[in-house]
Amino acid sequence: MSYIAEDLAKKQKEISVAEFFERNRHMLGFDSPTRSLFTCVKEGVDNSLDACEEASILPDITITLKRESGDEYTVEIGDNGPGIVKAQIGSVFGKLLYGSRFHAIKQSRGQQGIGISACVLYAQLSTGRPTEIATKIGEGMPAYHCRVMIDTQKNRPILTNGELLHWEKPSGTHTKMRIKGRYVREKRQSIYEYLKSTSVVNPHARIVLNEPDGVTTIFERATHRLPLKTVEIKPHPHGIEVGTLMKMLKSTDSIKLVSFLVNEFSRIGYRTAREICSRAELDENAKPKRLNNDEIRSLHESLKNTKVSAPPSECLSPITETLLKKGIKKEIDVDFIAVSSREPKVYSGHPFLVESSIAYLKKSNEGTRIMRFANKVPLLYQQGDCAITHAIESIDWRRYGLGQKGGKGVPEGPVIFLLHVASTSVPFTSESKEAIADIPGIADEIKWSLRECARKLQTHLKKKEKYEKMREKEEIIKEILPQIAEKCSRFLSKPMVDLDLIMAKIMDVVVIKNEVSYSNNIYNVKIGITNYTKRGKDFTLYSLIPKEGRVVEQRPKGSLLDGPVKLISWKIPRVKRNGSYAIEYKLSNLEKGDYEEAELYVKNIDAQLVDGASAYEEVL
Amino acid sequence: MSYIAEDLAKKQKEISVAEFFERNRHMLGFDSPTRSLFTCVKEGVDNSLDACEEASILPDITITLKRESGDEYTVEIGDNGPGIVKAQIGSVFGKLLYGSRFHAIKQSRGQQGIGISACVLYAQLSTGRPTEIATKIGEGMPAYHCRVMIDTQKNRPILTNGELLHWEKPSGTHTKMRIKGRYVREKRQSIYEYLKSTSVVNPHARIVLNEPDGVTTIFERATHRLPLKTVEIKPHPHGIEVGTLMKMLKSTDSIKLVSFLVNEFSRIGYRTAREICSRAELDENAKPKRLNNDEIRSLHESLKNTKVSAPPSECLSPITETLLKKGIKKEIDVDFIAVSSREPKVYSGHPFLVESSIAYLKKSNEGTRIMRFANKVPLLYQQGDCAITHAIESIDWRRYGLGQKGGKGVPEGPVIFLLHVASTSVPFTSESKEAIADIPGIADEIKWSLRECARKLQTHLKKKEKYEKMREKEEIIKEILPQIAEKCSRFLSKPMVDLDLIMAKIMDVVVIKNEVSYSNNIYNVKIGITNYTKRGKDFTLYSLIPKEGRVVEQRPKGSLLDGPVKLISWKIPRVKRNGSYAIEYKLSNLEKGDYEEAELYVKNIDAQLVDGASAYEEVL
Repeated sequence: MSYIAEDLAKKQKEISVAEFFERNRHMLGFDSPTRSLFTCVKEGVDNSLDACEEASILPDITITLKRESGDEYTVEIGDNGPGIVKAQIGSVFGKLLYGSRFHAIKQSRGQQGIGISACVLYAQLSTGRPTEIATKIGEGMPAYHCRVMIDTQKNRPILTNGELLHWEKPSGTHTKMRIKGRYVREKRQSIYEYLKSTSVVNPHARIVLNEPDGVTTIFERATHRLPLKTVEIKPHPHGIEVGTLMKMLKSTDSIKLVSFLVNEFSRIGYRTAREICSRAELDENAKPKRLNNDEIRSLHESLKNTKVSAPPSECLSPITETLLKKGIKKEIDVDFIAVSSREPKVYSGHPFLVESSIAYLKKSNEGTRIMRFANKVPLLYQQGDCAITHAIESIDWRRYGLGQKGGKGVPEGPVIFLLHVASTSVPFTSESKEAIADIPGIADEIKWSLRECARKLQTHLKKKEKYEKMREKEEIIKEILPQIAEKCSRFLSKPMVDLDLIMAKIMDVVVIKNEVSYSNNIYNVKIGITNYTKRGKDFTLYSLIPKEGRVVEQRPKGSLLDGPVKLISWKIPRVKRNGSYAIEYKLSNLEKGDYEEAELYVKNIDAQLVDGASAYEEVL
Repeated sequence: MSYIAEDLAKKQKEISVAEFFERNRHMLGFDSPTRSLFTCVKEGVDNSLDACEEASILPDITITLKRESGDEYTVEIGDNGPGIVKAQIGSVFGKLLYGSRFHAIKQSRGQQGIGISACVLYAQLSTGRPTEIATKIGEGMPAYHCRVMIDTQKNRPILTNGELLHWEKPSGTHTKMRIKGRYVREKRQSIYEYLKSTSVVNPHARIVLNEPDGVTTIFERATHRLPLKTVEIKPHPHGIEVGTLMKMLKSTDSIKLVSFLVNEFSRIGYRTAREICSRAELDENAKPKRLNNDEIRSLHESLKNTKVSAPPSECLSPITETLLKKGIKKEIDVDFIAVSSREPKVYSGHPFLVESSIAYLKKSNEGTRIMRFANKVPLLYQQGDCAITHAIESIDWRRYGLGQKGGKGVPEGPVIFLLHVASTSVPFTSESKEAIADIPGIADEIKWSLRECARKLQTHLKKKEKYEKMREKEEIIKEILPQIAEKCSRFLSKPMVDLDLIMAKIMDVVVIKNEVSYSNNIYNVKIGITNYTKRGKDFTLYSLIPKEGRVVEQRPKGSLLDGPVKLISWKIPRVKRNGSYAIEYKLSNLEKGDYEEAELYVKNIDAQLVDGASAYEEVL
């Protein structure tokens, strides 16, 4: 007798991962011709940046696009990275799910081991042609050139045409592929925009783009400082899944449970490890490999409930506040920028951090724009499906002074949102790495970060309004009051009253104004204090300056305080009623746009009486 | 000397596909606890429906959800499918990228070989527990029970606790897994909604849901007719990629090029095959395996430019118009539904078809709603990232009578969109299979289909308006005209004029009204014709009836025309000025809601003179 299940069983078959993605290439970012060309450039450039970073090399990347026929383009990407050893070329370019960064717990652009081999797969699928690789690993070595295709049924590289070449430059990798695609420039989702955004958050890179029409754009290096290198860490105990814990217990070399905990996790010392064991009612000397499933589950429960510090932040590489601001300022003329950098948190054992920035534009006919980054890579596609967009849409922006229909959705108004999610493992919604999944912990952090910025924006908008009103008041008083007084005195035939006293009574504040200008790489800051109150005032004034800023001149000399924030402070000597006092200082080591307005704070005076500065307690 | 590239090479490593998805489980639909529980049910039910369909069994599926502790649930799914042979259980449930439907070119729900093993992976990751499988392949066989886990480093199943059981039912498969999740009911994105929608488009299935709070819902079988079984076909020559062609040429058993083309493709006969060879300037007797890359590219070019018929539609299984309508009507009270079923098309060699439906609701305070289906599976997540949503957003709906801000985005108003994309390989944006990628050919078909419905909707809205106006006019004339006439005749002391003549002059149309009622499974249709024109009229009247409808009574007897559409026609004898004529007929074999209004057409009369029917030429 034969059963249907037996017939069906005959059709069951293993599917190679290369076959799977050959069929589902749209998951890798190869859906439309425009996006396919974009994806090839993106995967290549991200790889070059990662390789240079790992080798502490200032990246020099050249992208050359040529239109070969109707819809066929060649894409050439060359870098000055550390190169690839000959034995690895095949697997790196011709095997999907192969790489060095998947198992390492540190931030990098490529983490999946799919990107560049997916491009090779797409090239052979769309034009039937192999990808050409040339690479040199250092001085004194020849360059090696070969062609790569993929045997998709076996997910294995096919290498041909291996030969040695002479190269002048010390090291690097060049790839050349021919694909079906379409080149567009005047679009937000374009190679040009991607490279522009990339160069803003990677100012140490020099990127040259040769477009199909022959136009060359150089995104010049803005600094020779390399970003801090990220350091690989061990898994963090929070949020780790019980299945992962089981796997770790099985493969550990540690002989005792307590040393397993100390050796295999970050942020666990012996004291904490013992505490974890005792709470789980497990012997700290138990053999990790011998734990049964119930014991593992109680260990997991105990790990979850033990307080440990946040993960070490050296595995992450933030964009930093200065570059976040610059990222927006390069785009458009802004009135105000609020920035927020959150502390690293953990999801499923993976550290991550969120940085965000909200800019309020000077021109008010601009629509809202969202700029998304993940591990310093700009995300241009799939905006509608990204946790960043969802977080923005879920906040009631009307509370913070922005327009929003029904308190839901993307707010209206002249606002740019820039957000960065950095993680040792960014949870992308698909292999094309263009949208971040709605992982609850990450979504919450994005919202918190946005709210921080939103509060600052709200304060700014209120302050602006208040300052505007104050200035109006001052103008009215200064211009009209003397005329009224004069007319009154003439009319009544009485002598003029003491106007100063009256003005002070009406204003009843100390006004502090500041003016910032930039020239020859130096910021010049002028602060003017006028006492409009009835009595003389002395107090302490603080000016917040960027961490990187260096004070090169001060008049009068203040004291420099460098702690969690950097401040200059001055003891202001008694300023009498209607009297004034001036301060001036200069800052170097900052770039244009880093410092638009001095942020001032006061102590030893009621901050309510001061316009143009906040209470010192608000510094932090 | 040591090179950086050599250090980096040591870290290069193969990544197992199970490891990859363990890390990136959100790509499989396991991001939030709510969605994770949903995904487990969906993958299980889709598998059961596929298995039953392949074995021509009417599906009987039971889902039982139990809350075990705070955030742990057991999910049990049982079906009456053909079962799984013992030797395959491990690979089916414990190996990612394994299955019978990936390589077959025909429509099915599961196509990736990932779904159910992903659930097993998630269960072990989130709760550390194995999945229990029990399956029986037929009468006289025992059921076999075992537990499955996955060795993620090797992507291999680990089977334990194998044992034989006695089962009463002839065949079927039961799975039981324990996972972290959250159960919600009152939400669009819920298990309940998913099953409800599933049962609408799969009316041959009986689905029982036992919810965690003990409530049982039975989605009862609505028909015992099995849907037409889909048939596996060969690849269609259009849109096939050159890389795929190379692979086919390499693995073919055909000895001559011409027989390769005939044997390996659908819709190519010997004549077409010879034409393809000659256009590519290739010898039709050439050995397929010996073609060089340039020859393959010119063969590819020739294949692309040769006219061949559309792919055979038996590989696809549409929802059908009746069920599309029912899908919407189950939801809400509708005023009008337009339906469009497009012919099969091809993208990258994969046949696909698009069906769509737009419903205009009676209540106008309802918001717009989009219901998406792919291969008869409701899609509840990632709506914002789906080609269906993008297509809706890209159309200017104002042209079709709907409200839409700026002519872009989802239109406003009391409208439901229901769309179905069926394909031998649906291009999902990720492995979680919740959104369709923006493949240009598919996106275009969706738009065409929507526009077809939109035009029908527009016609309906206009007709409605016109009918409304006509009725108003008729009322005014019938009520007021006699009064005016009477008053005039009295006032002028003249005899009454012939009102009938005047009324006909003013109206100057033949009015055809129809009234449809339903009782005891029979539709009763009454058609009334009144001639308000100045002269007598004779013409032919046609009534469109649904394909499945059976005419059980007619008064007077008409002729039945069954072609591409089904019509009854009557030769209407001369109806004199202000005269009337009545027709009545009954339809059986239809379900309530299938036939709301008779669609009428006229011939041998100027259709401009007729209200309530269109010109016969518009039938098709």
